[in-house]
Amino acid sequence: MELWFTEKQTPGLGITCKVLQTLHREVTPYQEIAVLDTEQFGRMLVLDGMVQLTISDEFVYHEMLAHVPLHTHPNPRHVLIIGGGDGGTAREVLRHPQVERVSLVEIDRRVMDVSRHFLPEVAVSFDDPRMDVHFEDGVAYIVNKCGEYDVILIDSPEPIGQAERLFSMEFYEGISSALREDGIFAAQTESPFVNQELITRVNSDISSTFPITRLYLAPVPTYPSGSWSFTLGSKCYDPMLSLRDGGLAGVLRYYNTDVHRAAFQLPNFVRELLCEEVVL
Amino acid sequence: MELWFTEKQTPGLGITCKVLQTLHREVTPYQEIAVLDTEQFGRMLVLDGMVQLTISDEFVYHEMLAHVPLHTHPNPRHVLIIGGGDGGTAREVLRHPQVERVSLVEIDRRVMDVSRHFLPEVAVSFDDPRMDVHFEDGVAYIVNKCGEYDVILIDSPEPIGQAERLFSMEFYEGISSALREDGIFAAQTESPFVNQELITRVNSDISSTFPITRLYLAPVPTYPSGSWSFTLGSKCYDPMLSLRDGGLAGVLRYYNTDVHRAAFQLPNFVRELLCEEVVL
Repeated sequence: MELWFTEKQTPGLGITCKVLQTLHREVTPYQEIAVLDTEQFGRMLVLDGMVQLTISDEFVYHEMLAHVPLHTHPNPRHVLIIGGGDGGTAREVLRHPQVERVSLVEIDRRVMDVSRHFLPEVAVSFDDPRMDVHFEDGVAYIVNKCGEYDVILIDSPEPIGQAERLFSMEFYEGISSALREDGIFAAQTESPFVNQELITRVNSDISSTFPITRLYLAPVPTYPSGSWSFTLGSKCYDPMLSLRDGGLAGVLRYYNTDVHRAAFQLPNFVRELLCEEVVL
Repeated sequence: MELWFTEKQTPGLGITCKVLQTLHREVTPYQEIAVLDTEQFGRMLVLDGMVQLTISDEFVYHEMLAHVPLHTHPNPRHVLIIGGGDGGTAREVLRHPQVERVSLVEIDRRVMDVSRHFLPEVAVSFDDPRMDVHFEDGVAYIVNKCGEYDVILIDSPEPIGQAERLFSMEFYEGISSALREDGIFAAQTESPFVNQELITRVNSDISSTFPITRLYLAPVPTYPSGSWSFTLGSKCYDPMLSLRDGGLAGVLRYYNTDVHRAAFQLPNFVRELLCEEVVL
């Protein structure tokens, strides 16, 4: 018997993966959590039927979400992660010795528990003494926070249901207040091929809150279209100009300083989404 | 009734697309040709069950295969395309006014016929008087060709069956002989996520024939993993240094000179495939 897991990524497009074993399935008050062992990508974390990460390609997403803002900020000491209950983003943040504290706010404690058990190489960060984990709603958590964080990372699922509030103007304003005066935030902002309207709206909203707004790109094979975007909002440092040596040579599998700069060089059709002038 | 077309891209991974209509199916002496109208990507050309192009994302592949070498060469007059019977690569080549002649060698005439009928915006190039089309085997075609072309582009299917010879050392040596003394060639060289051994071998083979060998990357959502590689071999011009203004601003949807430079900035795991030193 062959077992295949298919995620309908859009009404007309799916990714389908051969499953060697279903390692875990449960329904929590927030979502359905599953861990599958796939032939192509190894273990896969699936939330509400949507691929959240796989062991084979999670390094690209987590490295690019964390290291682009963390190499832009000259001294990131206190970092807040909203979402990211699997621990992958925190793992990358903690590679920076300047980081003194990582606050992680995940709504569903079971995502952490399941990741620690089935995805230990991703969830490794939870054993670090610098971790400060809160199981609550990320939007509520940042209300009334003022000037506390150097960097805030939004490691959210798709903007569906509860997660939709993590892509709202009100939330970006809250993020801005919660950051120090030279703070930076970065968020995953979906696919430039299949979520074009979202990218245009989010970029416009973040631009109206942050003086420097930059979109950057990276490939993530198990996400819709295989291409992913991140949007960075910054109060003073420009990620295309400000870039420090993180001392992580030889440790990372995707990120390097050349890739950092290259990720901001956008194809014409993406520039158009941002209403930027297209030049050759 | 819902009809879905699934390509098993590897033994454990597939892409699945909702089909609005099957526009064409035929078996030629060389392969099965199909044209489907899909909900997500519009019309799709499928050869032997493998997605060859879709109307939605073909611009990335064709622009990057053609414009990177053509913007590197200072005066590309005679261009040879091996494969590419759909006409998309030729369409991009013909945008360069310096190009006087495009020789296209496609083994299966029916690919051109079907493309002209069902994919006219891709096959538009066949009406250009500079086109010189040959229906024969590409490997045989270049034997004994000597110093004829400024640029050669290999627009081949996957290295399976007959197409395997288009990824061989002997073929690269033939390409080198067929090029002028300052010639450049570029080939599609599969996915850096799922065809890693091929990329390492091809890069090594091309390096032993061409003084300058460079891998570059671009996203193609409908190809396995959504990320694609191209390898460029050059006798004298380095695509990372030599770059002319092609005067195509406002015409292209993916390529621009910033993207040209950025495409050569490789992630650490890809540098490792090329046995390059990994630095931060």
